[in-house]
Amino acid sequence: MLRLLLVLPLLGAAGALPAPPRLRRGAAPAAGPYLTRYLSQPIDHFGFDEDRTFRQRYLVADQHWKKDNGPILFYTGNEGDITWFCNNTGFMWDVAEELNAMLVFAEHRYYGESLPFGNESFSDSKHLNYLTSEQALADFAVLVDYLKTTIAGARHSPVIAIGGSYGGMLAAWFRMKYPHMVVGAVAASAPVWQFGDLVPCGAFFSIVTNDFKKSGTGCSESIRNSWNAINHLSSTDAGLQWLSSTFHLCSPLKNLQDAAVLKNWLSETWVNLAMVNYPYKADFLQPLPAWPIQEVCKFLKDPRLSDKLLLQNIFQAVNLYYNYTGEALCLDVSETATKNLGQTGWYYQACTEMVMPFCTDGVHDMFEPEKWDFDTFSEECYRLWGVRPRPSWILSMYGGKNISSHSNIIFSWGGCFPISFKPTPPWMFLVIWTVMRTVHHPGLPLRAPDCNHHFNKTTEKTSRRRSTGYHQNPWSGDIFST
Amino acid sequence: MLRLLLVLPLLGAAGALPAPPRLRRGAAPAAGPYLTRYLSQPIDHFGFDEDRTFRQRYLVADQHWKKDNGPILFYTGNEGDITWFCNNTGFMWDVAEELNAMLVFAEHRYYGESLPFGNESFSDSKHLNYLTSEQALADFAVLVDYLKTTIAGARHSPVIAIGGSYGGMLAAWFRMKYPHMVVGAVAASAPVWQFGDLVPCGAFFSIVTNDFKKSGTGCSESIRNSWNAINHLSSTDAGLQWLSSTFHLCSPLKNLQDAAVLKNWLSETWVNLAMVNYPYKADFLQPLPAWPIQEVCKFLKDPRLSDKLLLQNIFQAVNLYYNYTGEALCLDVSETATKNLGQTGWYYQACTEMVMPFCTDGVHDMFEPEKWDFDTFSEECYRLWGVRPRPSWILSMYGGKNISSHSNIIFSWGGCFPISFKPTPPWMFLVIWTVMRTVHHPGLPLRAPDCNHHFNKTTEKTSRRRSTGYHQNPWSGDIFST
Repeated sequence: MLRLLLVLPLLGAAGALPAPPRLRRGAAPAAGPYLTRYLSQPIDHFGFDEDRTFRQRYLVADQHWKKDNGPILFYTGNEGDITWFCNNTGFMWDVAEELNAMLVFAEHRYYGESLPFGNESFSDSKHLNYLTSEQALADFAVLVDYLKTTIAGARHSPVIAIGGSYGGMLAAWFRMKYPHMVVGAVAASAPVWQFGDLVPCGAFFSIVTNDFKKSGTGCSESIRNSWNAINHLSSTDAGLQWLSSTFHLCSPLKNLQDAAVLKNWLSETWVNLAMVNYPYKADFLQPLPAWPIQEVCKFLKDPRLSDKLLLQNIFQAVNLYYNYTGEALCLDVSETATKNLGQTGWYYQACTEMVMPFCTDGVHDMFEPEKWDFDTFSEECYRLWGVRPRPSWILSMYGGKNISSHSNIIFSWGGCFPISFKPTPPWMFLVIWTVMRTVHHPGLPLRAPDCNHHFNKTTEKTSRRRSTGYHQNPWSGDIFST
Repeated sequence: MLRLLLVLPLLGAAGALPAPPRLRRGAAPAAGPYLTRYLSQPIDHFGFDEDRTFRQRYLVADQHWKKDNGPILFYTGNEGDITWFCNNTGFMWDVAEELNAMLVFAEHRYYGESLPFGNESFSDSKHLNYLTSEQALADFAVLVDYLKTTIAGARHSPVIAIGGSYGGMLAAWFRMKYPHMVVGAVAASAPVWQFGDLVPCGAFFSIVTNDFKKSGTGCSESIRNSWNAINHLSSTDAGLQWLSSTFHLCSPLKNLQDAAVLKNWLSETWVNLAMVNYPYKADFLQPLPAWPIQEVCKFLKDPRLSDKLLLQNIFQAVNLYYNYTGEALCLDVSETATKNLGQTGWYYQACTEMVMPFCTDGVHDMFEPEKWDFDTFSEECYRLWGVRPRPSWILSMYGGKNISSHSNIIFSWGGCFPISFKPTPPWMFLVIWTVMRTVHHPGLPLRAPDCNHHFNKTTEKTSRRRSTGYHQNPWSGDIFST
């Protein structure tokens, strides 16, 4: 289940678009005031036997909105509490005034407060049955329709979908499937190709590894060597005890299974660090210093140390991630990111539609080798939820790489973000927009230096209408004119 | 429930495209040989709790197909037995050789042999739950994907969706929702605007009425007067008996409710006649002479006759439709069209997604006045199926008139066919193609005279790339090049 656990944080963070340079020069922006609203939605948009409804939460900030022609920026909520995404999508708050835009943040069903069956929502596969991307997009469509018909002056306001990670895929898919609802979409750090065999299963972890490799001598090698060190120690009770004590674990390790959980937790920690490797002090998944990977790597300079010395250093590194404020009494291996993300819901989605093959080999990456084994994965899903994943469905539904007949979608990704998404030009009808100096976060100042040089050579800027430089404000031009 | 009964035949017939003039000069063409195949499909594409599959039937004719670049013409099956559509879509058989095309006819779930739960499929709303246009489109997508990956030489074959009536809507929607599957669509006589308030609810019946009005003096007035005549007679037992005898009914009328069924049956008969008003002898819904409305109207010249004389003439008229061959021993008011259409399934669809408002006023049309009353309709649906219709869903799902961001869809309709579909130019990305001399049938020779003059002034030929004359073979050019 390593693969599942790793997907969650990958998709958890918000958009990666930078603010226009003239607006933002400092740290991540704060969200403004907003109103919380609810809309009654059918639990099942695609069938009529289940005719109950649930309350979908959405947030509205219209203080800068100009009636009749001011746009509506519509955040297509991810797998988590929408208020958290609202507060971490500074990009939208930044441009609201300049664009006279209304901001709407729509919560994804089965996350935050938008639970179709309340506390029963996750009780079994029957109750989870309506947790799919298609149902979520249908919620968004009904909500956009509702907003345009009930808010005075909104009928002719162009709506632009915006999202990051899984929410970025939803933004792109929303434009693809409901182009009558949104004139365009900004899909930030959206791993739309992380399905089937569109990209090698090892690409993502190889990119994460590179982030560590270039952040300090011996860093990625130390992590690569740590797995065997843990394996050696966890073969004895004394070793397990030593690991529990050294890592300040809240619950001591008792057996090899617990040791495997520890290794998963470490892997996820390295991935999360790569996602929040901001050039400034920030508090997104955890409170962290600027360039946290460089900080972490300061503890991991010598990969040839003995097992215990190496692992003491590994502890220092993860302790920086989990305990930068010094407030944690112990470390909890059951949690790697923020509680604002809906882990259970996302695991179910990964076990049904969102089947993303990941693998590691320990050679091109610093992780313990693990093949992508669909059959094992499927068995695990069946054991957990009583459902079987359908690995090819997302490709049939959304088109994979064959999406050239769509228009007005900006796929952006940050130069620092380890997303395995490299478009093949020319995409006739799409804008590919590489944001060279951003990571997996919305509010990065453009004055920050490049942080992921291997992305420099993959910059592609193609458009049906015109090229788009990464410093250009995408809202000022005619990208979304139809 | 008059509205429901009228929708069924409207959507039952096949495509309205004429064959290219150089190929076809005679009567409707015959279908060639084909193979019958089955594909295992998920009963529920949009949920994972119901994980069973069913066998979708499809027909393949590849005798003219040229591997590697010959196109695949993909018929998006309507609400009926796919073999019937296959045998009545001569247009596709006509062009197969010229285009080196493979023909595929995909059966719509819940019709013909493609029953998700076998004989239980229509037993209750739980079993009917997977009968939606979205599930049908998903079946088509999975089938196209399967054909392209399993048939040697098909991987790069362009697929073009083709359908008529409800199948025409499906063809258009298939291109809209799955443009990565089909390079274009031909939507013949597809009433994509017969939802919500996109067209006046009385438009359709007004057009049907005009067909009778111009086919004989006194014709539409006779029909308009017939309703009161029936009402007068059905108020007494003797009158009911007279009606049963005069109309040679298989089951005698016993009460006012039975008389209402008689009136519905007559209304549907007039609508069906308008749909099959071919200029040649044909056998589509029923065996009929050329220009059947003109033949019918020969019995209906004097609208001012007494009730009984008027209704004797009405019987002569409907007898021509139901008993042109002289073989019928009695007339059955429970049936108006062919048994090949799936009445039960379509009624369920009309009660859920396919909510098409129809109304009559007896002034602009020749029918008994009946308002569109959604609440009554909804109650009736609930009584019948335990489901409530969602009248705005199709508009949210497929965009209503706001479909300009799509491309490569030809909407065609026949000048003789009473379809209430008048596009508003310019539709930037769509080809609007008026086929002036066709009716609701695929095989009409172009030498036939215009038969529905009120359509003459609404001809619109707009295209993103170029105009398309109605005599032009749409396959010969670059309409579908991307």
